[in-house]
Amino acid sequence: MIKTKQAAYTILEDGNVSSPGGFQAGGAAIGLRKGNKLDLGWIYSEVPASAAGVYTLNSFRAAPLLVTEESIRQEGKLQGIVVNSANANACTGEEGLINAYTMRQTFADQLGIPTAYAAVASTGLIGVQLPMDKVIDGIHSIELQGQADDFAHAILTTDTCTKQVAVTVSIDGVPVTIGGAAKGSGMIHPNMATMLAFVTTDAAIPADVLEQLLKQSTDQSYNMITIDGDTSTNDMVLVLANGKAGNKELHPGHADWEKFYAAFHYVSQELAKKIARDGEGATKLVEVRVQHAATAEEAGAIGKTIVASSLVKTAIYGADPNWGRIIMAAGNSGATFNPNNISVWLGDVQVVQAGKPAAFDEQSASKQLKQQTVVITIDLQEGSEEATAWGCDLSYDYVKINASYRT
Amino acid sequence: MIKTKQAAYTILEDGNVSSPGGFQAGGAAIGLRKGNKLDLGWIYSEVPASAAGVYTLNSFRAAPLLVTEESIRQEGKLQGIVVNSANANACTGEEGLINAYTMRQTFADQLGIPTAYAAVASTGLIGVQLPMDKVIDGIHSIELQGQADDFAHAILTTDTCTKQVAVTVSIDGVPVTIGGAAKGSGMIHPNMATMLAFVTTDAAIPADVLEQLLKQSTDQSYNMITIDGDTSTNDMVLVLANGKAGNKELHPGHADWEKFYAAFHYVSQELAKKIARDGEGATKLVEVRVQHAATAEEAGAIGKTIVASSLVKTAIYGADPNWGRIIMAAGNSGATFNPNNISVWLGDVQVVQAGKPAAFDEQSASKQLKQQTVVITIDLQEGSEEATAWGCDLSYDYVKINASYRT
Repeated sequence: MIKTKQAAYTILEDGNVSSPGGFQAGGAAIGLRKGNKLDLGWIYSEVPASAAGVYTLNSFRAAPLLVTEESIRQEGKLQGIVVNSANANACTGEEGLINAYTMRQTFADQLGIPTAYAAVASTGLIGVQLPMDKVIDGIHSIELQGQADDFAHAILTTDTCTKQVAVTVSIDGVPVTIGGAAKGSGMIHPNMATMLAFVTTDAAIPADVLEQLLKQSTDQSYNMITIDGDTSTNDMVLVLANGKAGNKELHPGHADWEKFYAAFHYVSQELAKKIARDGEGATKLVEVRVQHAATAEEAGAIGKTIVASSLVKTAIYGADPNWGRIIMAAGNSGATFNPNNISVWLGDVQVVQAGKPAAFDEQSASKQLKQQTVVITIDLQEGSEEATAWGCDLSYDYVKINASYRT
Repeated sequence: MIKTKQAAYTILEDGNVSSPGGFQAGGAAIGLRKGNKLDLGWIYSEVPASAAGVYTLNSFRAAPLLVTEESIRQEGKLQGIVVNSANANACTGEEGLINAYTMRQTFADQLGIPTAYAAVASTGLIGVQLPMDKVIDGIHSIELQGQADDFAHAILTTDTCTKQVAVTVSIDGVPVTIGGAAKGSGMIHPNMATMLAFVTTDAAIPADVLEQLLKQSTDQSYNMITIDGDTSTNDMVLVLANGKAGNKELHPGHADWEKFYAAFHYVSQELAKKIARDGEGATKLVEVRVQHAATAEEAGAIGKTIVASSLVKTAIYGADPNWGRIIMAAGNSGATFNPNNISVWLGDVQVVQAGKPAAFDEQSASKQLKQQTVVITIDLQEGSEEATAWGCDLSYDYVKINASYRT
């Protein structure tokens, strides 16, 4: 039985990063991507906003991450973000770091904001220096009054569609809006990926509270998706809160905190799921729900291992109800559980009952794997904790895209 | 410069598991695989042999592993091994366990050896009960004087070729021979995989020494290969030493121990590399050498992470010298090193020098990735430890094979 929870927030049609009050966003084509595609995006807040970020755990952290982290560390505030696609400015040494600083300075000057209030992000090919003449000319061409949809397009690489969402929620009786845009596609794995996500809100909330909120929400959204098990050098989620809504400052003791958290978390999960669904070569979103685990960590580990398994992913692509691979992946997760208690469902078709094959109709099970969203449920009968992980199938197109990314 | 070490052992042409004295092996077609392929294999030693095994670390351990481990635990001896392909007898509950015991008993009776001297192994589809009538009839049809090549064929699943090797080495002035056969293909990952390997030797060596030798050699051979990052429920390496060569009992204090170890380890590495080269859909063997690491564990972790990365594997398939992905994978390994010191070579073409792009010719680098064996070298400049990992590229055929394995 599905429990219907009354959502305290409203999803905005065509919502985006400029849905919250006081934000603008736009994009331009500056010649970094082939075919004159949009490749430079920017977000601007009319007033300095509380800011927080989470960053890749890869040992190689790209130059723009170092520069953006430095900006946020100064006052916990940002007023503008500039993003380029096609080039990650990663593994580019000192020259790359200088280029990221130059990019930040040029952008801050163009908007007339303090250097420390500007953030930079890059995504694309690793190990090539940014063509700074194009980047600088591009930033000089930025004019406010842009289209948020252009921003969403400008940050893409091998993505096939934009990823945008916004919700509104009543806090202290005033409407507070949260918007977001993200890009994903390859190198997507728990603990950040070549994944960039930008969240804006007109809520009033201090930077330290925002940081805790972002970390907590990230652990159950962006960090629960995987495309190919690789973690990029450039992953980053940034959130800006400019206080334009006029609510009282939010913190965990605030009467409407749970409502705000739920709305914020919805935005995180929606962006994460949109990234997973649009994984390189993906034809389906895969959602793995792990129930009755001893700990939430073990539930998460099992979910992520299943959704990351190439054998599970290819079986889903082929709509083959080969549940042995799901069991095998669960057994590789490092989690401790009794294999004789595990049950598995593909959609609503039970395929494993207490560690043994359940009697099921192959056709019905295969049909469950042909849905646009494939749901796999694992019940461990070990405890009361749960977790959900998201990913996608592994198709011929994944190989095609990645065998010739540069050429 | 390549250092040529005088090998103390000789590689036997067409060597196999019956090359050592006192061993026989064979195979039969008993109707488990489609197209009347060989699907039941056996090895027999004329006298009880010292025996040791290493097993999968997957939480789900298939029934035949439990039964074989029980056999070896009793006296540290084996005299016969029976293997079926097409069905893994994994996740089959109590019925599966009873079937594995029945398989062992039937085989022991057929050969006239004690039950505790018989081992069983299975590989293939998970979660389906063995058709015991076929298995029992098949075992009853076993006659000694078989062909070792038939054994090597009978243990295959999606493998495209047999994997066999044998070497001879002089110990105490008498020739000692070591032979092996293996199967691999999918679900191959460090710490065992759907990988079965069987090693025979006529050396005299006690079971406890043999077990230590096997574990040590496994860590630098079978456990250093990966095909798709998944670890099977059925992986097992068994070694039998029947003492027929007439050498003095081997142990680490024996004057010829190093020679014997080198010969034994060559067999392990050759079988492991043959498995990696024949990974599902593979077109090339990939060898990743990590040098000057702080610890051997970190060197191994970096090598395995690189060779397991889908993005690295697809780039190698496409002969795209996209070294950023190699760097990215190294950064995801969990090893600690200074990114500014790392250097990378594709074959003999240096592509990264101290953390930054080296000037290199794209054509030459791409040519390195078109070899039958692609060698990637990573130099960390952190210490003096090293490790080598093996894998394969990721092609369209991997997807093809795995999207329709059962159908």
